[in-house]
Amino acid sequence: MTTGKNYIGNQLSAKGSKTFKTFNPELNKENDVVYTEASSEEIETALALASAAFLEFRTIPGVKKAKFLNAIADEILALGDELITTYCAESGLPQGRAEGERGRTIGQLKSFANLVVAGSWVEATIDTAQPNREPMPKSDIRKMLIPLGPVVVFGASNFPLAFSTAGGDTAAALAAGCPVIVKSHPMHAGTGELVSSAIIKAAQKTGMPNGVFSNLNSSGIEVGQKLVSHPKVKAVGFTGSIKGGRALLDLAAKREEPIPVLTEMGSINPVVILPKALENRNQQIAKTYAGSITLGSGQFCTNPGLILGIESRELNLFIDSLAQEIIQIKPSCMLHPNINKGYHKNKKTIISQDKVQLIANYTQEIKDNYPAQAIVKVNGADFLQNNKLHLEVFGPFSMVVVCKDAEQLATVIANLEGQLTGTIISDNDEISKYTSVISALQNRVGRIIFNGVPTGVEVCESMVHGGPYPASSDSRFSSVGVSSIKRWVRPFSFQDWPNELLPKELQNSNPLNIVRSVDGKVSKQKIE
Amino acid sequence: MTTGKNYIGNQLSAKGSKTFKTFNPELNKENDVVYTEASSEEIETALALASAAFLEFRTIPGVKKAKFLNAIADEILALGDELITTYCAESGLPQGRAEGERGRTIGQLKSFANLVVAGSWVEATIDTAQPNREPMPKSDIRKMLIPLGPVVVFGASNFPLAFSTAGGDTAAALAAGCPVIVKSHPMHAGTGELVSSAIIKAAQKTGMPNGVFSNLNSSGIEVGQKLVSHPKVKAVGFTGSIKGGRALLDLAAKREEPIPVLTEMGSINPVVILPKALENRNQQIAKTYAGSITLGSGQFCTNPGLILGIESRELNLFIDSLAQEIIQIKPSCMLHPNINKGYHKNKKTIISQDKVQLIANYTQEIKDNYPAQAIVKVNGADFLQNNKLHLEVFGPFSMVVVCKDAEQLATVIANLEGQLTGTIISDNDEISKYTSVISALQNRVGRIIFNGVPTGVEVCESMVHGGPYPASSDSRFSSVGVSSIKRWVRPFSFQDWPNELLPKELQNSNPLNIVRSVDGKVSKQKIE
Repeated sequence: MTTGKNYIGNQLSAKGSKTFKTFNPELNKENDVVYTEASSEEIETALALASAAFLEFRTIPGVKKAKFLNAIADEILALGDELITTYCAESGLPQGRAEGERGRTIGQLKSFANLVVAGSWVEATIDTAQPNREPMPKSDIRKMLIPLGPVVVFGASNFPLAFSTAGGDTAAALAAGCPVIVKSHPMHAGTGELVSSAIIKAAQKTGMPNGVFSNLNSSGIEVGQKLVSHPKVKAVGFTGSIKGGRALLDLAAKREEPIPVLTEMGSINPVVILPKALENRNQQIAKTYAGSITLGSGQFCTNPGLILGIESRELNLFIDSLAQEIIQIKPSCMLHPNINKGYHKNKKTIISQDKVQLIANYTQEIKDNYPAQAIVKVNGADFLQNNKLHLEVFGPFSMVVVCKDAEQLATVIANLEGQLTGTIISDNDEISKYTSVISALQNRVGRIIFNGVPTGVEVCESMVHGGPYPASSDSRFSSVGVSSIKRWVRPFSFQDWPNELLPKELQNSNPLNIVRSVDGKVSKQKIE
Repeated sequence: MTTGKNYIGNQLSAKGSKTFKTFNPELNKENDVVYTEASSEEIETALALASAAFLEFRTIPGVKKAKFLNAIADEILALGDELITTYCAESGLPQGRAEGERGRTIGQLKSFANLVVAGSWVEATIDTAQPNREPMPKSDIRKMLIPLGPVVVFGASNFPLAFSTAGGDTAAALAAGCPVIVKSHPMHAGTGELVSSAIIKAAQKTGMPNGVFSNLNSSGIEVGQKLVSHPKVKAVGFTGSIKGGRALLDLAAKREEPIPVLTEMGSINPVVILPKALENRNQQIAKTYAGSITLGSGQFCTNPGLILGIESRELNLFIDSLAQEIIQIKPSCMLHPNINKGYHKNKKTIISQDKVQLIANYTQEIKDNYPAQAIVKVNGADFLQNNKLHLEVFGPFSMVVVCKDAEQLATVIANLEGQLTGTIISDNDEISKYTSVISALQNRVGRIIFNGVPTGVEVCESMVHGGPYPASSDSRFSSVGVSSIKRWVRPFSFQDWPNELLPKELQNSNPLNIVRSVDGKVSKQKIE
């Protein structure tokens, strides 16, 4: 049951005066529960608890942290149908998607649990002493990763589970040993409260300190601003719009103590279709991409918003096929009336630009909060002259850029902002002729895909979900996969520290049996 | 021979109108050579060359990059006496220090050469495909670290070789595959030009693209400001004052595209001396610390500027011993009249604070640009009430804070800004009683030392030279040791990419024979 309250540590609390409701876009009406925004006092309490909890939480062994993470997964599952119903009522997304995303969320929590049980993620590195070294003796120096401190997580509207309350950012931070304060997404505050209740139950069952997790409601920007500016906050994770992410970065830049603010923002995910592929698989590519563009109403960070080709008869045929395929797909509900309005506004902005041709537009009757998918076309030279055409149209929309040759294609790519992904659709023997295109693409993205679609972000060790700005604020980190734990940790050295006082990870006997680098050699060996 | 010109890529160039000279603090007079500041046009050219060079340099194999790095080391040695003479004439530091620092610089270059020859630093991670996975097939995803792009390096005044032109920042960036533009330190512009000539020779001998390195003279802040704001610059490394570093961070925060700005700034390096150690080794600790405080005229980032103890007869005896020891040490020349002036100004600021007692002050006659070392004392309660006492006095100075008990000691530490190092001087059996002190210290520093001195930063894999702000701008990175390469690289994923088009690091046959994580297992195995 959702109460509309915040979790200030383990306590439900609603001391604020501002309230709001979530919205069911499928039914086009507000949901019933009234949510109370966190007050300044509640924010202070949550952060004081988190700071105090950090002192204990950072010393908790991996095995115990793993129990906590696995317990969160169990408690989320134990929420049963209520979670799925609330998720659907707050997002307009179908039940299958809700269940799939729950599975992904649980999978992420478990993968971080496995990571901290295995323990080698701390990158233990040991240089043993050389007391007789000339001209100066060498000290014993040992290094490992330790947590930064309390982390604030801003959930994403488009993934109410996997990139929100107990999503990747939270799972990574808790695994690292950082308490988490979630700034709940107002569009799915109920889903957020349910998941928070699961986290709090798990924390209590596994003996975590009060304050290891808090969940703060807010419908405006004030709560988020207070959190990002607060001296007790040591890092921030955000997934959302460029405008929102940049505002947080600018706010954080004014802090007395700078902190890492990891924002995953916009991406139009360029797809390059090479000539031979078009010649041989025109129809098939069009069908695949009509599906990828409209998947989940196009509400994915990796939605292919930009398709690039070299002018030819086959490219024209492809554009025709894509137009035909896409208008046959039935629209599906968007997350919120505001998201739908934003979609249609941005789509209109693009269509109204000089030299842009509307190629396909869904014109049949549609329900409230459903988007009309569309495809537009523009020439490479015109695209290069108008930066407004780089605008991300969040929804089922894509722009085909018809370049006059490979050189212009590479120039178009080189002039793009940073992107999460880039895709090359190619026959095997033609790609080697387009090295400058690939080189330009690699320079602008975090992940490059061969003959696939950018939608569908596999959660695995090798995944990079991030990229040059504004895909993310710091391309040196991924926000998906267990390596995302590196966002919330720092290396720490012990010099000549007594063995028995070292953390277990660095002790001579290697009691946790983890992989370490000892004098440059990687192994699980003890130090004699 | 120094010409006073900039290196714009491989070309010596002096198109600017502003000039300056370096200063010999030992002789208290200007050196002869006239240096010309880089003009706006030269800055643009250097950055255009660096951007173009990056496209080639980032694809150069590790073995070839290593030849370049080793050649830089050889060419620096080949500069012979001229380098040492110039170094001494521009820094007031003695010949032995110059030679030692040259050895360290060469050692750093070679360790990065070894790193890129070994090749495993790219953290190659491979998740092989599972085409039959249900409900969705799994793609083949492979990840490795790739360079960010052109890096600007601001050298430090206090290490004209090891933290300057071809110092750790530059060596790490070149090893990563990033071209480097050095904003030369005006106090050692001649040393910088000589080292630059070595880098350029090495680049030409080993076939590196023109633009892989440039060296820009400047005596003011304009050149640095232009570099940090320039869209072609993809990262910045800086070692210097809090004021200077923060100005760069603030400037970079205004960029359209945020970039990593890694600044290593101030630190007063707290040293905690526990009671039993004082009882047993009073004199010896005083002698050791008098040496550490005055080493290199106290001009080290890791100089122990703050000594913390619990009030006792032994602490008083220690303070007396420290006072006696330190005034027996003969002052040595500071880097520059301005550094010496800054030292005396900051020392005066501290001494003039209410409740601060001057314990030792060198009062014999001293030469121009030589500093008068000093020790002051203050009580814990007074220290806690006056943040001005946290000021870094760059030079041979330290403050002893007399705390009333262990609790106040922990509070004093918890209220400190971030620090590079923290030190505990302790007898083996007493440290376990001070867990809250150690916990507080660990939370504020990047490296913790047992029964040693913080000065002397070993260059090794396990070293962390960095720490919470303002010790550095991002505690997640070290600026010393081969792991410092991580500042200049980002992870990149290839999804379903054809094997023959993958970088060698990720190809099935593992042709570079590097350590990789394949489906979660770490080995050098091929993929069948």
